[in-house]
Amino acid sequence: MNSNGEHGLFPGQNVELLMDSVPAIKIEETCAADSHYEEIDVVEDTNISVYHRYKHFDWLYCRLIEKFGSIIPIPLLPEKDIPWRYSDDFVQARMGGLQAWINRISRHPIISHSEIFQHFIRRRDEKDWKSGKRNAEKDEAVGGMIFSEIMPSSEFRLLNGEEPEKYLTFAKCMGESVRNLITVTEEHTTRCTGSLKSEYIKIGKAFSDISASFAKSTYLGKESIGNALAFVGKTYDDIGNVYFDQPKQDVHCLLEISKEYKGLLACFPDIINVLKGAIEKAHEYEKLAQVNKVTMKEKEAIVFKAGVVSSTIQAEINHFNRELTNDYKETIQHFLYEQVQMYSKITDKLREAYARFEF
Amino acid sequence: MNSNGEHGLFPGQNVELLMDSVPAIKIEETCAADSHYEEIDVVEDTNISVYHRYKHFDWLYCRLIEKFGSIIPIPLLPEKDIPWRYSDDFVQARMGGLQAWINRISRHPIISHSEIFQHFIRRRDEKDWKSGKRNAEKDEAVGGMIFSEIMPSSEFRLLNGEEPEKYLTFAKCMGESVRNLITVTEEHTTRCTGSLKSEYIKIGKAFSDISASFAKSTYLGKESIGNALAFVGKTYDDIGNVYFDQPKQDVHCLLEISKEYKGLLACFPDIINVLKGAIEKAHEYEKLAQVNKVTMKEKEAIVFKAGVVSSTIQAEINHFNRELTNDYKETIQHFLYEQVQMYSKITDKLREAYARFEF
Repeated sequence: MNSNGEHGLFPGQNVELLMDSVPAIKIEETCAADSHYEEIDVVEDTNISVYHRYKHFDWLYCRLIEKFGSIIPIPLLPEKDIPWRYSDDFVQARMGGLQAWINRISRHPIISHSEIFQHFIRRRDEKDWKSGKRNAEKDEAVGGMIFSEIMPSSEFRLLNGEEPEKYLTFAKCMGESVRNLITVTEEHTTRCTGSLKSEYIKIGKAFSDISASFAKSTYLGKESIGNALAFVGKTYDDIGNVYFDQPKQDVHCLLEISKEYKGLLACFPDIINVLKGAIEKAHEYEKLAQVNKVTMKEKEAIVFKAGVVSSTIQAEINHFNRELTNDYKETIQHFLYEQVQMYSKITDKLREAYARFEF
Repeated sequence: MNSNGEHGLFPGQNVELLMDSVPAIKIEETCAADSHYEEIDVVEDTNISVYHRYKHFDWLYCRLIEKFGSIIPIPLLPEKDIPWRYSDDFVQARMGGLQAWINRISRHPIISHSEIFQHFIRRRDEKDWKSGKRNAEKDEAVGGMIFSEIMPSSEFRLLNGEEPEKYLTFAKCMGESVRNLITVTEEHTTRCTGSLKSEYIKIGKAFSDISASFAKSTYLGKESIGNALAFVGKTYDDIGNVYFDQPKQDVHCLLEISKEYKGLLACFPDIINVLKGAIEKAHEYEKLAQVNKVTMKEKEAIVFKAGVVSSTIQAEINHFNRELTNDYKETIQHFLYEQVQMYSKITDKLREAYARFEF
């Protein structure tokens, strides 16, 4: 990690982590003949295919937490043990989860260039994997020591005490909003696939019943109304199924991204505590230096370190905010697009049913 | 009542009650200064305005039941005693109910030309009203005696035993279907004005909360996403209100007409019993005549009477079926039209929200 601009750190409002091109990583689930564990195929744009078991992902996750956890919110891995783990649905769901996880990791300008991650996506053989693994586990620049690896740009600045509070307030509010969105969308999913579906199917049945009753009439004009009503019945039955299928189209993505951010946002209080600790310590050393209880050199070293922490975490927060904004923009746009599709489909179905009454 | 074709009775499948032009009767609620009872203004197309209290409608209803109840299903009067009877809502609802009632009565070719009804809509003054009332109450051609007033056309025929069963089966099935439709649409109304409204308002609030959380961010790009999300929040809030207002637009009419038909269909078992009784008696007299236990003249009188009953009730059933078909055609068409309007409105709102994400 350095400050040559490739993924360096810059001070002030415009602090950002610059990203260079992100390798496209595609996860495919394969099943080894001799194992109950699934093998995972990581395909990078250089056409390297590497195979990893779930436990390798778990190893990577633990290393990332250990090394970067104090400055970067590391997304939670999708769970390993789900009761339906060997079903097709499980394979699909976990593959989707791992894909989202690796996408986020590989988009991060620091993690994606880190030795651990590069080792993970470029492992050549078992021997190579094991030696890289040993090296990573011996890395001493973990936890608070990560800052020793960071070379700040010349203009880095120490944040004042209010800024961490603002970050914290934002992370807490957004965390609460995201958790609320999860609850509301989960309830909506349950309603769409449960009571709403059955309600529309009941409405459909009520119309079909009226149609069937008309069939029992001795009235000559019964056929047209009977057919039209049967069509209305089928229409509401279809609408029930449209509601049932809808969450897969729209709510699902919103739910997945929100669950991801719920985890990421929960990391911030700890990260911001690191920042607050560094700033407080710098202010303390400034006071101590004024009364000559520490040397100027000692004070400057602490202030320098706090500046590095400030710039690093501010850069991380900017990166996070950009990701959050883009992810929600994209996901809600997709959600609304699918909602428009659904309501248009229902409108068209009802319009067709309406036309059946032109007799 | 006669068979000159104006509202005469014809035999066979095409038996029908011919309707001539129906006077437009408009009910308006007025409030007498000296009374807690509302006065009702019946406006006919000849520009006669007559005033009736609710008890006069009740009197007319009782007379109609007494005179025509054995051959014509008489719609129930809207209830008099509703807890909120003096509120504006009550006045509107009862006026609507009385309007529907008088419309149906005035569309009936026999009732609309009957002396009682003509007296009701053309009363001149209190003296005139009272004398007409006395005459009507002295009328002896009520109940089964109504048939003595009916002059069948020359081709009238005696129905066979199966036909009344078909009518009964139809009336029972349709009655059940209509009651089911009432239950389902009432449930749907409750859901639209209750849980669906609050669900969409909750979804709206969840998006507004995310928007408010973005406002707390220190990120420069927060404004566009914040505004777009606030708009989505407002959109779902609006959608909640669209659902809340919808039943007044669509379900209401379907519910009103279904409640009316629930009452009308419940009259048929008694009417069909009259028909079955007459047919059975005719068949019995035919057998008795074969063994000379009754004279040919006696038998012919009974068969003639059963033929009159058959033709009259078949004509009534045809009239009823035509009304039922037209009413449901019109009401469901209206219902679907309003449903299309609602879903289009929601689609447009969501499309507008989607466009806010083009930043």
